[in-house]
Amino acid sequence: MKTISENRSFGGTQGVYSHDSSATGTEMTFGLFLPAEAQDGPVPVLWFLSGLTCTHANAMEKAGAQSWAADHGIAVIFPDTSPRGEDVPDDDAYDLGQGAGFYIDATQEPWSKNFKMWTYIADELPALVGEKFPLDMGSQSITGHSMGGHGALTLAMALPGRFRSVSAFAPICNPTNSDWGRKQFAAYWGDEDNWGPHDATLLMQGNGFDGPVLIDTGTDDQFGDLLGTAALASAMVERRQEGHLRMQKGYDHSYYFISSFMEDHIIFHAEALYK
Amino acid sequence: MKTISENRSFGGTQGVYSHDSSATGTEMTFGLFLPAEAQDGPVPVLWFLSGLTCTHANAMEKAGAQSWAADHGIAVIFPDTSPRGEDVPDDDAYDLGQGAGFYIDATQEPWSKNFKMWTYIADELPALVGEKFPLDMGSQSITGHSMGGHGALTLAMALPGRFRSVSAFAPICNPTNSDWGRKQFAAYWGDEDNWGPHDATLLMQGNGFDGPVLIDTGTDDQFGDLLGTAALASAMVERRQEGHLRMQKGYDHSYYFISSFMEDHIIFHAEALYK
Repeated sequence: MKTISENRSFGGTQGVYSHDSSATGTEMTFGLFLPAEAQDGPVPVLWFLSGLTCTHANAMEKAGAQSWAADHGIAVIFPDTSPRGEDVPDDDAYDLGQGAGFYIDATQEPWSKNFKMWTYIADELPALVGEKFPLDMGSQSITGHSMGGHGALTLAMALPGRFRSVSAFAPICNPTNSDWGRKQFAAYWGDEDNWGPHDATLLMQGNGFDGPVLIDTGTDDQFGDLLGTAALASAMVERRQEGHLRMQKGYDHSYYFISSFMEDHIIFHAEALYK
Repeated sequence: MKTISENRSFGGTQGVYSHDSSATGTEMTFGLFLPAEAQDGPVPVLWFLSGLTCTHANAMEKAGAQSWAADHGIAVIFPDTSPRGEDVPDDDAYDLGQGAGFYIDATQEPWSKNFKMWTYIADELPALVGEKFPLDMGSQSITGHSMGGHGALTLAMALPGRFRSVSAFAPICNPTNSDWGRKQFAAYWGDEDNWGPHDATLLMQGNGFDGPVLIDTGTDDQFGDLLGTAALASAMVERRQEGHLRMQKGYDHSYYFISSFMEDHIIFHAEALYK
């Protein structure tokens, strides 16, 4: 693991690190905010999974999470959204290939060699950061934005017991029924019969999540029709899922929206992480 | 109008009053909490519509609203849920007739003579209380429980401009598709073709509400399957309605649930009432 940078931030440290990933076969970069409390021992962990086109840096720089994470003594991990590099397959479209890993393990050529973001986020990166940093891996929660909201929700529901709470900002909620999902699943997995249960609405219709859920989506989200929020809302109620769904008036899909409600999300997770 | 009782409560006054209603042709009773600020001039108004089997008294005695209404200088009106009396038609079932007005105007015999709760709540009672008490009728919001949540949501959407905010506790959300609704609409209105648009989900699919919406429902609500919450949740998202839908873990349909979240609802309405 290499240290790219470390900056003092809200009494703690915002670091950026890279490492050779066996899951993706590439060098992967991630951001990690450690609050001051980490000097004295392991701290709870919040994962932030980013959306299409983002690297580890976007949320780290624009979501404003460090301020409130410091208040509550919580570490925040900002992974990248896909493998990257000249040797890694890509597509001219912004929503396929590099920057668009969708938090799944591809099985189809040319993607299958590198695009193993599920394994990377679910297995490899937690093992690495749990070993290298003072993190309490028994107290983890997860959030994300858009494609990263899809990742957060599907990871939380598919790995029961791993995360104490899950939230999302304008998540892709029903990818098997959206152009943000069908295109990528077809490319990465091929025939629809091979699509795994990586759809938050379908998972919610199944076992749901054993903990609290918080979802914020703007009423003026320019991508609102691609998100499938109504299907997830219905599934949450039908399953009697503990959770809050908030339609925030006038907000769009940007980091201006995310940062406006980041404090609410950190407080929400802090309550679960310190239970 | 007759004064039944007046008690000092949180620095203000909890009154109970009765009057002869032209809408229902009966004597109607209501509760009104006036905060201390009402001594100095008109105060904003929150309506609380109650559920099946309730009188004006249940919420007045068990919802705990006075404490937080006093904090924010807001009056709260607690109407009855139906006309009452020996000469008023009734049914052996708890969910039809007296105590089950459903906030609609009946057109079918034997109900049509007295069961005019829409006209009573939408027209007659506001005119009366606006004349008799120091209320700012230009600053009104509305909430309710179960059948009263249905009433609150349908009044708010059917009377644009009247209410600044609407909330509900475990509301009946889709009565045209539930045994809590179809039975009563059939009795009061007859053939389904005559059913007016008194269904929150159908109204939400139409124009929705021009202001914020807050809905709380318990995950352990013993009547959850009768409420139709999923249909309204989906309609809210599809319409991009400003609003929060919260599924509250472990709570049921009782006043223990209502009182637990009453402070949140009063604060929510106060923000709209003082805008």
